[in-house]
Amino acid sequence: MSATQVPPKLLRVSVIQTCSAAYSLEETLEKLKHLTHIAKERDGSQFAVFPEAFIGGYPKYSTFGAVIGDRSLPGRDEFLRYHSSAIEVPSSPVITYIERVSAETNVYIVVGVIERDSGTLYCTVVFIDPERGYVAKHRKLVPTATERVIWGQGDGSTLPVLEKVFQVSESAHSGGPVTAKLSAAVCWENYMPLLRQYYYSLGTQLYCAPTVDARPAWQNSMAHIAIEGRCFVLSACQYAEEKDFPPDHSVVDPTNREPSKVMIGGGSVIISPLGQVLAGPLLKGEDVLTAQLDLNDCVRGKFDLDVAGHYSRPDVFNFGLKA
Amino acid sequence: MSATQVPPKLLRVSVIQTCSAAYSLEETLEKLKHLTHIAKERDGSQFAVFPEAFIGGYPKYSTFGAVIGDRSLPGRDEFLRYHSSAIEVPSSPVITYIERVSAETNVYIVVGVIERDSGTLYCTVVFIDPERGYVAKHRKLVPTATERVIWGQGDGSTLPVLEKVFQVSESAHSGGPVTAKLSAAVCWENYMPLLRQYYYSLGTQLYCAPTVDARPAWQNSMAHIAIEGRCFVLSACQYAEEKDFPPDHSVVDPTNREPSKVMIGGGSVIISPLGQVLAGPLLKGEDVLTAQLDLNDCVRGKFDLDVAGHYSRPDVFNFGLKA
Amino acid sequence: MSATQVPPKLLRVSVIQTCSAAYSLEETLEKLKHLTHIAKERDGSQFAVFPEAFIGGYPKYSTFGAVIGDRSLPGRDEFLRYHSSAIEVPSSPVITYIERVSAETNVYIVVGVIERDSGTLYCTVVFIDPERGYVAKHRKLVPTATERVIWGQGDGSTLPVLEKVFQVSESAHSGGPVTAKLSAAVCWENYMPLLRQYYYSLGTQLYCAPTVDARPAWQNSMAHIAIEGRCFVLSACQYAEEKDFPPDHSVVDPTNREPSKVMIGGGSVIISPLGQVLAGPLLKGEDVLTAQLDLNDCVRGKFDLDVAGHYSRPDVFNFGLKA
Amino acid sequence: MSATQVPPKLLRVSVIQTCSAAYSLEETLEKLKHLTHIAKERDGSQFAVFPEAFIGGYPKYSTFGAVIGDRSLPGRDEFLRYHSSAIEVPSSPVITYIERVSAETNVYIVVGVIERDSGTLYCTVVFIDPERGYVAKHRKLVPTATERVIWGQGDGSTLPVLEKVFQVSESAHSGGPVTAKLSAAVCWENYMPLLRQYYYSLGTQLYCAPTVDARPAWQNSMAHIAIEGRCFVLSACQYAEEKDFPPDHSVVDPTNREPSKVMIGGGSVIISPLGQVLAGPLLKGEDVLTAQLDLNDCVRGKFDLDVAGHYSRPDVFNFGLKA
Amino acid sequence: MSATQVPPKLLRVSVIQTCSAAYSLEETLEKLKHLTHIAKERDGSQFAVFPEAFIGGYPKYSTFGAVIGDRSLPGRDEFLRYHSSAIEVPSSPVITYIERVSAETNVYIVVGVIERDSGTLYCTVVFIDPERGYVAKHRKLVPTATERVIWGQGDGSTLPVLEKVFQVSESAHSGGPVTAKLSAAVCWENYMPLLRQYYYSLGTQLYCAPTVDARPAWQNSMAHIAIEGRCFVLSACQYAEEKDFPPDHSVVDPTNREPSKVMIGGGSVIISPLGQVLAGPLLKGEDVLTAQLDLNDCVRGKFDLDVAGHYSRPDVFNFGLKA
Amino acid sequence: MSATQVPPKLLRVSVIQTCSAAYSLEETLEKLKHLTHIAKERDGSQFAVFPEAFIGGYPKYSTFGAVIGDRSLPGRDEFLRYHSSAIEVPSSPVITYIERVSAETNVYIVVGVIERDSGTLYCTVVFIDPERGYVAKHRKLVPTATERVIWGQGDGSTLPVLEKVFQVSESAHSGGPVTAKLSAAVCWENYMPLLRQYYYSLGTQLYCAPTVDARPAWQNSMAHIAIEGRCFVLSACQYAEEKDFPPDHSVVDPTNREPSKVMIGGGSVIISPLGQVLAGPLLKGEDVLTAQLDLNDCVRGKFDLDVAGHYSRPDVFNFGLKA
Repeated sequence: MSATQVPPKLLRVSVIQTCSAAYSLEETLEKLKHLTHIAKERDGSQFAVFPEAFIGGYPKYSTFGAVIGDRSLPGRDEFLRYHSSAIEVPSSPVITYIERVSAETNVYIVVGVIERDSGTLYCTVVFIDPERGYVAKHRKLVPTATERVIWGQGDGSTLPVLEKVFQVSESAHSGGPVTAKLSAAVCWENYMPLLRQYYYSLGTQLYCAPTVDARPAWQNSMAHIAIEGRCFVLSACQYAEEKDFPPDHSVVDPTNREPSKVMIGGGSVIISPLGQVLAGPLLKGEDVLTAQLDLNDCVRGKFDLDVAGHYSRPDVFNFGLKA
Repeated sequence: MSATQVPPKLLRVSVIQTCSAAYSLEETLEKLKHLTHIAKERDGSQFAVFPEAFIGGYPKYSTFGAVIGDRSLPGRDEFLRYHSSAIEVPSSPVITYIERVSAETNVYIVVGVIERDSGTLYCTVVFIDPERGYVAKHRKLVPTATERVIWGQGDGSTLPVLEKVFQVSESAHSGGPVTAKLSAAVCWENYMPLLRQYYYSLGTQLYCAPTVDARPAWQNSMAHIAIEGRCFVLSACQYAEEKDFPPDHSVVDPTNREPSKVMIGGGSVIISPLGQVLAGPLLKGEDVLTAQLDLNDCVRGKFDLDVAGHYSRPDVFNFGLKA
Repeated sequence: MSATQVPPKLLRVSVIQTCSAAYSLEETLEKLKHLTHIAKERDGSQFAVFPEAFIGGYPKYSTFGAVIGDRSLPGRDEFLRYHSSAIEVPSSPVITYIERVSAETNVYIVVGVIERDSGTLYCTVVFIDPERGYVAKHRKLVPTATERVIWGQGDGSTLPVLEKVFQVSESAHSGGPVTAKLSAAVCWENYMPLLRQYYYSLGTQLYCAPTVDARPAWQNSMAHIAIEGRCFVLSACQYAEEKDFPPDHSVVDPTNREPSKVMIGGGSVIISPLGQVLAGPLLKGEDVLTAQLDLNDCVRGKFDLDVAGHYSRPDVFNFGLKA
Repeated sequence: MSATQVPPKLLRVSVIQTCSAAYSLEETLEKLKHLTHIAKERDGSQFAVFPEAFIGGYPKYSTFGAVIGDRSLPGRDEFLRYHSSAIEVPSSPVITYIERVSAETNVYIVVGVIERDSGTLYCTVVFIDPERGYVAKHRKLVPTATERVIWGQGDGSTLPVLEKVFQVSESAHSGGPVTAKLSAAVCWENYMPLLRQYYYSLGTQLYCAPTVDARPAWQNSMAHIAIEGRCFVLSACQYAEEKDFPPDHSVVDPTNREPSKVMIGGGSVIISPLGQVLAGPLLKGEDVLTAQLDLNDCVRGKFDLDVAGHYSRPDVFNFGLKA
Repeated sequence: MSATQVPPKLLRVSVIQTCSAAYSLEETLEKLKHLTHIAKERDGSQFAVFPEAFIGGYPKYSTFGAVIGDRSLPGRDEFLRYHSSAIEVPSSPVITYIERVSAETNVYIVVGVIERDSGTLYCTVVFIDPERGYVAKHRKLVPTATERVIWGQGDGSTLPVLEKVFQVSESAHSGGPVTAKLSAAVCWENYMPLLRQYYYSLGTQLYCAPTVDARPAWQNSMAHIAIEGRCFVLSACQYAEEKDFPPDHSVVDPTNREPSKVMIGGGSVIISPLGQVLAGPLLKGEDVLTAQLDLNDCVRGKFDLDVAGHYSRPDVFNFGLKA
Repeated sequence: MSATQVPPKLLRVSVIQTCSAAYSLEETLEKLKHLTHIAKERDGSQFAVFPEAFIGGYPKYSTFGAVIGDRSLPGRDEFLRYHSSAIEVPSSPVITYIERVSAETNVYIVVGVIERDSGTLYCTVVFIDPERGYVAKHRKLVPTATERVIWGQGDGSTLPVLEKVFQVSESAHSGGPVTAKLSAAVCWENYMPLLRQYYYSLGTQLYCAPTVDARPAWQNSMAHIAIEGRCFVLSACQYAEEKDFPPDHSVVDPTNREPSKVMIGGGSVIISPLGQVLAGPLLKGEDVLTAQLDLNDCVRGKFDLDVAGHYSRPDVFNFGLKA
């Protein structure tokens, strides 16, 4: 017990609402660079989360020519194109590029990529540290519905909860370095109670949720998770219009293509461990959302709810990562 | 494969927003009877969920004279009283009374009670079948904060997911008997990912959430759970004013007691497996909320999300009830 | 060492090329009964393999309204219909019906079914013994492509290799009871080297391969597996035309529906452990293919190739079912 | 996602159907040189696979004087001769010779040799890179039947899957260097599911299958493996007549030696990842078979089948190289 | 240190020189029974070692139609006959029969059998305890030469060193029960230094060496092993003439069959830990050789040589059973 | 495969049965020179093995005044003397002397010496090449019994298996240079299975066994090792009488010293890889034993037994030199 106040542990974090650039990895990387600089220079941010599948793209409305019991040759070619626009992790020049952006801005970057591992693709999130470069990746555990036709399943080896010491941020006027634990769950992984429990059990504080789910109901789940896990939830969703996809890409109504018609509607948001919405949700357009956090709020929240601690029942439920 | 549409599996269910009657178990049971009849006669309901601690009461704002390192004699007396107003489950005339109400209305009743088991009290939910009477109970696994001073912890033996065949409801014009699986999680148990996962794994469809949590954030979690579990969430919260408590009961401002001042603000709600709010939230007053469900919606929902089936990863996470 | 010849171990086995009856589980079961009687009475068979998904149906060319990132309500309804035409295993009257057919014909039946387990469906094979009724099931481990949208993954608990003592068959003039080991791999599971190795390691002799894969290349794989595993391969494929599906079912060219247009082209076949084709491939139409086997041929074959015995390298490769 | 087609990754590869020259290592090496030049100059090939035991010879129909329980002195002498015609790998002038042929033709050579390691012989495949010379070897894991009398077993240390960057081939008009992964399985090793799974798991694309198995059934297995592994299968079989063996060598009918009687009948073939036969099978005589490959076909194939990726079940089966 | 003498640990042990009965398992078992009774009744023996492959037979001079690169159908049939005359261990009536002989004579029996395990045969030794019946088996680790065509390799799981408490033998006038450790190495396994070291490391005292090797040089190795391992060596060899094989069996000179011509010439022997020959070698005919041992001699011998103890160098050589 | 016979690889080798000269290193070296010339000139030998401890002497029957718990001063003095008559290896004029003998006779010399390394003595074998002089040494790993009072233990760094190219020997009429691998194990080291296995694994062909063990049982072990290792065994034993020791040296019966009484009885022998005794055993007196070898016999022998190759089980037993 101390008579003095605990000094705040301030951190400025951002979620980036954007989409992959149609046609071009190069332009997508340009966007990543540009938006990271905005996070840094305009908002004084130290941490940025980009959406799911930002590198490699999210082929919404495609079927890849697959139906029950059959695949078409054009579908295979579409897969080949998608495969060829994916990246190996970490041995790809794209990773090197992001490392450079991270280093030059001093912004820690969490970004969704399509990862190529031999013949199988994964919906992956990579973690890029401004000082150490690439540090880890997380592969989405369960693709949703038709995604299963194009993505494989991650396994228990890529579920990192990382510790990062953030140096003093000028804009934050923080008194010293701040240590945070961070992890990522992609899109509907956020509905997996066991994955979340696992992350909570490792003490995640910056719970990153890159997604392409733009339904309003997503907001409920983000708020729930923040409270359930007593963590900051940083959800970055893509915002994309038809013009952001190749001209021959599937759309809802192919007979009436409209360049400005929304394909993925955004909804990026930052929420505190007690359920307070700190930024967003941003329901339209591309932008950077930034909030200043006090990491002490995680502890404040766990006073009465720690589902991996005093509020757990290890005597009732077996739980753990499979050996 | 069938060319014909699957007929709906209709069921009418209710959540009862109410509170324990001050001073009197008898009156509380009267309220239970009365409200069940409303559910039945006014709304054609077949299933009713009452709030947490409806029988026995929720002593909001009490401390029972306990501080760190000390307990007072008046606090002990307060506990004695609370203990004596609790019931044994199932061997209590109260259970018999509820069985009778259920039988005469043909309404399945799920109701929160304070259970006495020798020297310890539990925050329990009992399940009363109109045909079979008492069928099971669930004891809350983790009391929250100061609740731990007065309630013990349930264990793995009272986590029932029950199957009930509901006969044809006239008002529902359903084509035949409808089978539903049901369970209950009390108040902040709803934040426990492992408990929910366990219920999902047993196929719960009517997920009952008796509570006394009236914060707006509760709505987010109820919506999240409905989607996450692809189940109907039936949350029944107490609505209580100062007048509903004994006159010497703790209140926020004892110097200025107002009989109509809200003590527990309600928020009862019924939500579908795809996240649609079917009834409520009822933010003020006591009442019965009723909705007609098509249980097929659970299957429609599990098409793309079944966190205990195709969307689980038993190879990554060990999970199960401890032997 | 023995101076006398080893007497043959004769068994008559069949593969049934057929499809689910459109619109009707009842008619499908009638077909199962009828074709089993043909196997028995016309061919003197003791063992019959039906195709993948014979009960429940194989919704070829459907997408269930799923595209990357979206599901439609009609797709959810289609899933609900498909879900409702699936069966629980073994607690379903359909299993009872097949048990009766098996008992009255004395034919051991291996048949593909769509299994319903709460919200998730599985592509399952059930094993029905004429004397003991239902004995086991196998759930397909990995659905192929769009199948992943509608079927879950089986796990390591349903990979039975069963031993069956077949009594003397009159038509086979066998000298006594014949014991055979049998298992099933469904459709592209047959491409999984580890699954096959597992079955071989348990001594499978009647390797059943229910499928809907009618490509000519399938024949190569069946021949390969017979030699690789030194087992009899019994592949039963569906043969279906457009008229065998509901009238609104997806087809290759919905603008030009032809009732007699082939949807699944068959190719059922029986192959010996040394690679000899004993019956089939039946490339058109529904029928029963029967062959008389001498189970001793498995031993003759393992003389120079036993990939789970003298031709294995357990010192080089770790392999086994996960604990 | 990319709007443009993925450019092909073209490669010209050959399988060489030939046999060891009787009496003479020198002549055998001459044949290797001559046939490699044909592959290069006539066919524009960049990669050539020679058959099993091409250097050292395959003593078909010999027993080496071994029967159960006894060995003869002439048999020991025959072994001594065979031992003396084997080579050490890589420290042999024969390897140097092949390196020179590879360098002068710029053809990557995969060739079967009999390797001598002290008292034990191995049926080995060596990999010779035009730029780097000898890069690796693979020793056959399990000799077949009587081969076990003369050859030892390879172990887990010689199972290379190599990566090779092929420079632009003029004849192929390829746009740039093409990287391919390659490995080799010898003769009936091709029936070992775990060996194949291991190679698949390392991403083999040019699956070389040097053999002396000339049975027609071999073709089924090659086609199966191509599809199963989504790789190009290059099977090079010996074609040999009695005149290609020493005059006192064992033959089927020693009382009626015919110089042109077939001893090993060939059947060399090249098959694509989707099971298409690209060249061969060459059922008679010695020759060079060449095909142009697009390595992208491996990805096109893995779209719906990747038995070491999205179509594997590491949670069900333990598998891996033993430590 | 004790002033009194250590009492002797006396045990009477036998090696049985015999062969499988031609044509008949029944007669072979009769021989086993008969010879065990002789060991017991004539010699007062408590322990009997039968030769390698006594049950199932040793097909000396056969090739099973296998040559390099080819197997014949008659060879496969010969294998099938051999396979059918092998036994499963322990679930075979033959084991039950031997258990009965052991129980009725109170003689511990170690006997070579051909074991059938699915498609592969093993050259196995079984250990039958008069009180406990079957206790363990050992599969030969490396078949010799052409044996590799018909037998698989045992692995590390069947290398038992067993402890047996022998009750007082009347004839031995021993003062009490005697505990002995025993193991078996078959034929040329006895040349494997690592196998012997392993047995020594577990303290084997009765080193059983069932064999069919009748060369005089065998005696040197038995004497060496006794000294090297400071154990009693009990080598039981088959003695067989042409008449003991089926009439069509391979012989050295098939044109001149002589029923009394020696096929396997015996040489059974019992040697002490200091190299003293206690019984035999029996160079002709079938018989039972018996010797009285004092197990204390093992300790006496290890005073100056214990290759798994004070005379080992675990700091120089890694050695152990592979995990 | 080759039609021609493999030419023999002939080599003439000798074992020298002799003893150290009493009193005098000088005389001992004279004996070494003399006997080497005999080997060369009389027998045409190219290789000679001298016994254990030939240089420095084997103090048979001494105790060096040591008992359990005590050592005497005279014993210490005895050790001092023994220490001073030992040599440093290789920096000793004795080594230079032997190098000269080797060079002038062109005989490769393997000879036992007592090596001094600071305060500790080792029982060592040195290898002297006629062209290269001293090439290596081997220190005995485990002294036997009381030897442990005077000798230390060698370690894993002195276990050479050397390769020597022997030039054409006129007398042998060999067609060209012959390469042989050679090693040495001293006295009871020959009972160490792991040391032998290690030498076999490096391909030793001339297995030298300098010893002072003259028991008849030694012959069994030499014969066993030759067969087990498929190598030529060259065992050189001392032959010494009482007169060859200092007059005050311990003897069996000091009260009755007889100059011609045998102290160490010889038994030198040369044995082939198939167990044939090529020379000796010489059971009395000093002499040179010579045999002509065909090194091809190692290969002929390994045809059916190679305990470090095809007859090993690296998957069952871990084995190797400790890192």
